[in-house]
Amino acid sequence: MTEMTDSPRRWMARALQLARRGEGRTAPNPPVGALLVRDGQLIGEGFHPRAGEPHAEIFALRQAGELARGADLYVTLEPCSHQGRTGPCCAAIIAAGVRRVFVGCADPNPQVNGRGLAWLRQAGLQVQCGILEAQARRLIAAFAKHQRSGRPLVILKTAATLDGRTATASGASQWITNAACREQVHRLRDRVDAILVGVGTVLRDDPRLTCRAPAGRDPLRLVLDSRLRIPDSAALLSLDSPAPTLIATTALACPARRAALAGRSGVELLELPADASGGVSLPALLDELGRRGLLSLLVEGGARVNQAFLQQRLIDRLMLYLGAKLLGGGDGKGLFDGPGPLDLADALPVRDIRLRRFGDDLLLEGELACSPD
Amino acid sequence: MTEMTDSPRRWMARALQLARRGEGRTAPNPPVGALLVRDGQLIGEGFHPRAGEPHAEIFALRQAGELARGADLYVTLEPCSHQGRTGPCCAAIIAAGVRRVFVGCADPNPQVNGRGLAWLRQAGLQVQCGILEAQARRLIAAFAKHQRSGRPLVILKTAATLDGRTATASGASQWITNAACREQVHRLRDRVDAILVGVGTVLRDDPRLTCRAPAGRDPLRLVLDSRLRIPDSAALLSLDSPAPTLIATTALACPARRAALAGRSGVELLELPADASGGVSLPALLDELGRRGLLSLLVEGGARVNQAFLQQRLIDRLMLYLGAKLLGGGDGKGLFDGPGPLDLADALPVRDIRLRRFGDDLLLEGELACSPD
Repeated sequence: MTEMTDSPRRWMARALQLARRGEGRTAPNPPVGALLVRDGQLIGEGFHPRAGEPHAEIFALRQAGELARGADLYVTLEPCSHQGRTGPCCAAIIAAGVRRVFVGCADPNPQVNGRGLAWLRQAGLQVQCGILEAQARRLIAAFAKHQRSGRPLVILKTAATLDGRTATASGASQWITNAACREQVHRLRDRVDAILVGVGTVLRDDPRLTCRAPAGRDPLRLVLDSRLRIPDSAALLSLDSPAPTLIATTALACPARRAALAGRSGVELLELPADASGGVSLPALLDELGRRGLLSLLVEGGARVNQAFLQQRLIDRLMLYLGAKLLGGGDGKGLFDGPGPLDLADALPVRDIRLRRFGDDLLLEGELACSPD
Repeated sequence: MTEMTDSPRRWMARALQLARRGEGRTAPNPPVGALLVRDGQLIGEGFHPRAGEPHAEIFALRQAGELARGADLYVTLEPCSHQGRTGPCCAAIIAAGVRRVFVGCADPNPQVNGRGLAWLRQAGLQVQCGILEAQARRLIAAFAKHQRSGRPLVILKTAATLDGRTATASGASQWITNAACREQVHRLRDRVDAILVGVGTVLRDDPRLTCRAPAGRDPLRLVLDSRLRIPDSAALLSLDSPAPTLIATTALACPARRAALAGRSGVELLELPADASGGVSLPALLDELGRRGLLSLLVEGGARVNQAFLQQRLIDRLMLYLGAKLLGGGDGKGLFDGPGPLDLADALPVRDIRLRRFGDDLLLEGELACSPD
């Protein structure tokens, strides 16, 4: 790798790190990071903190001030060319006198999609797109999915032993993974727009689904509950959290139960069509979440809910925490429930696998659906 | 890392690679690699090819000839100090005029265990022990286990989807992992002394258990078959292989069946005590294999056999091939069978996890029992 290609990668890696500070806060915009470099020195940097606030490039330009003239801009996503809630970044970049622009990936937004790059080039700037492109694309995968399909990116998160058990036969699951993994799950909750469980998990574990990471924020909580079996005593119904709890239900639910829950503060009932098996229609749910501008949904099981998402081919990304242990036996709980395919050709491939270690435990991440971008 | 420590590690890494060329061929000796370096140049190298042949150091010294005088020796295991089938290496090293000796790890063999290092030091050589020690110890783990316990190292090898399924509900298991993983399994068979399955696997899959790796050699094959249910038509009974097939059975087997099988060429019946559940006693089996000088045993399942080894805490090492796919459902086959523990505290920890990638698939390797060395 030459110095010329190595250095842009290093700066882009830093811009990607900056971008991640906005993850989970920018919907319906993507997280973006940017920085300005002059004579090998960092002179300004920024990230998009939330919708309505300036874009990453603007923060970096403001910090650099007059030094931006003749400098290099690194930005994880193609700068915008359209007037949104904020002005087009391309105009600001050109006005500041930036000489070269290094871009992570082009913007899948049809309103931008190459027009930003073309505008900068027409103004005489040197533009190079595709620096650390795979990481840059992965960072905006939720935004891209939403642009493409109107639905949030669906992330299946689960934890299992090395022999694929999420709990013992008696349901004991504390703890499959170590404390470092469990902390990381809270940092993950901090970065997604919504988190989903089935009412079975509520009845069994009574979870709060809040984010206990330092400086974290709670995602929207979502319970699949076609018949409103959630008890009044559920922790999810009496949380002190700025984020609401949505209960996705169907016309099959008892009206009295509906009336009782409708009055709870911080709780919203969302009536959706039922699917053939009497559960909440997951496609309808994802469409509704997309309409609300939610870009990412973390599915935290249990096995029935996991299976419903898997079977309907609705999972985009797998995040599998693997506890470094073998449970043994054939009667422990698995990741999925019900009848599986009889033919291995019907198993779903997981591509682009990334691995992280947390002590002896592992996080295995990969992509499921064949995403066209 | 300073240059001084970096360079010994690089040479030792090469010595470890050399040693691996003997893996599976050296029983009851350990695999060992050695090389000689003078003025930064490699002047001789070798590995122990099989019991009765010279040790690794001798090959390296022969290749270096007179150049060995004043050179540095890198050897993965402490040179031997005792007269075995070949002379003590320490004497040869001193006689050749080697100046410094870098050693991977000390020899757990009580006949050596530090005496080799002491001898070299007394003769005025500089000796440094513990270069890439973890890898050096892992390389001789089977030898060390055998020294310690009289039993072979037990390696549980299995392949599963990311959701922990070794086959679909109908038993389909072709293919859980990709061709690169399956090739690697043959290279693994090439490096172990024996390979074991239960008669259930024989009845279901009719495997040959031979090594189809290029330049590979067949390990001894072992079938657990307490009642001699193996059919006359089993592929294992009519192989063209230099290695024998052992059928481990008990007094519960029908004498006529025993007589029929005893006459097959390349087949040996091994009668062992039965355990409480009527199966072949695994501790008795491991003792017998150890007495025969076998250092390593690869257990290739199925789920019942895996469970028996796991439950009796007889597994030393896990080699888990993970196919990059999700099967889904709760009815596929698992790694283990029968009742598992109800308390997660009874799950067996897997330490020192190593990961290798084969395309999208993975090999996860780790140590189970608490080995004292």
